[in-house]
Amino acid sequence: MSAIARLQQTLHQDIPLTRAMQLEVGDYDGERLLLTAPLPPNINDKGTAFGGSLYSLAVLCGWSLLRLKLEEAGLKKNIVIHEATTRYLLPVNEALHAECSLPLAAWESFLHTLQQRDRARIALTVVIRQQGKPAVEFTGQYVAHD
Amino acid sequence: MSAIARLQQTLHQDIPLTRAMQLEVGDYDGERLLLTAPLPPNINDKGTAFGGSLYSLAVLCGWSLLRLKLEEAGLKKNIVIHEATTRYLLPVNEALHAECSLPLAAWESFLHTLQQRDRARIALTVVIRQQGKPAVEFTGQYVAHD
Repeated sequence: MSAIARLQQTLHQDIPLTRAMQLEVGDYDGERLLLTAPLPPNINDKGTAFGGSLYSLAVLCGWSLLRLKLEEAGLKKNIVIHEATTRYLLPVNEALHAECSLPLAAWESFLHTLQQRDRARIALTVVIRQQGKPAVEFTGQYVAHD
Repeated sequence: MSAIARLQQTLHQDIPLTRAMQLEVGDYDGERLLLTAPLPPNINDKGTAFGGSLYSLAVLCGWSLLRLKLEEAGLKKNIVIHEATTRYLLPVNEALHAECSLPLAAWESFLHTLQQRDRARIALTVVIRQQGKPAVEFTGQYVAHD
């Protein structure tokens, strides 16, 4: 089973809300990860994506990217979110696509700290677009620890 | 049907994720609203409450309180979340209880602006406690408009 298929299985098994959201793990190229979910199970009273679904997809996008990268580095750590800021710029009325990128320099610095201290913090930004335009900007402070 | 029962029906009908979360509208005293959800459907890989569930409960707690207050004032407005900051202080390993209070002075100022301009913004703070201690602190900027 590929790392992506394993990740999706883990999310669906361990976090039941991801099944209700019909979350799917999309493309991953080693630096950038895409998570998606269809609109209908994530809709709100206005017929657009529910803010809680958008947040959930975003927070899991950062968490999942970090998990994949740590797995590649042979490290098994707990990853938790400490703090997050979410800005809603546009309503989303299409399938939800969250994208998170982890620049190489930030990753290397994080990994270095983690190897020195068994605990490190990293800020990850996730964007959800509506017809190509940023609709949600999420920045999360994640901590990995033993 | 009471305003509380109507609110819960609206949430479950219009936002399907609230059914998956098994969200329930709790006490309301005109200034303070409680929303609850059991842990099992909102659990994560660590056996504690999923950050996305905690956020969803918090964002809906503020939204719902504003909706109840506007309804009491005879106003039908769209309420949207523009920006939110979430701090996770402790893991939650019991049923989720979100509490939002709307101090009278803030409400009156918001209502005054809304009646003058058909659009107003208000910051609401929601707290989720774990055994009485603040576990999640959420602050959301909400906008009501026609």
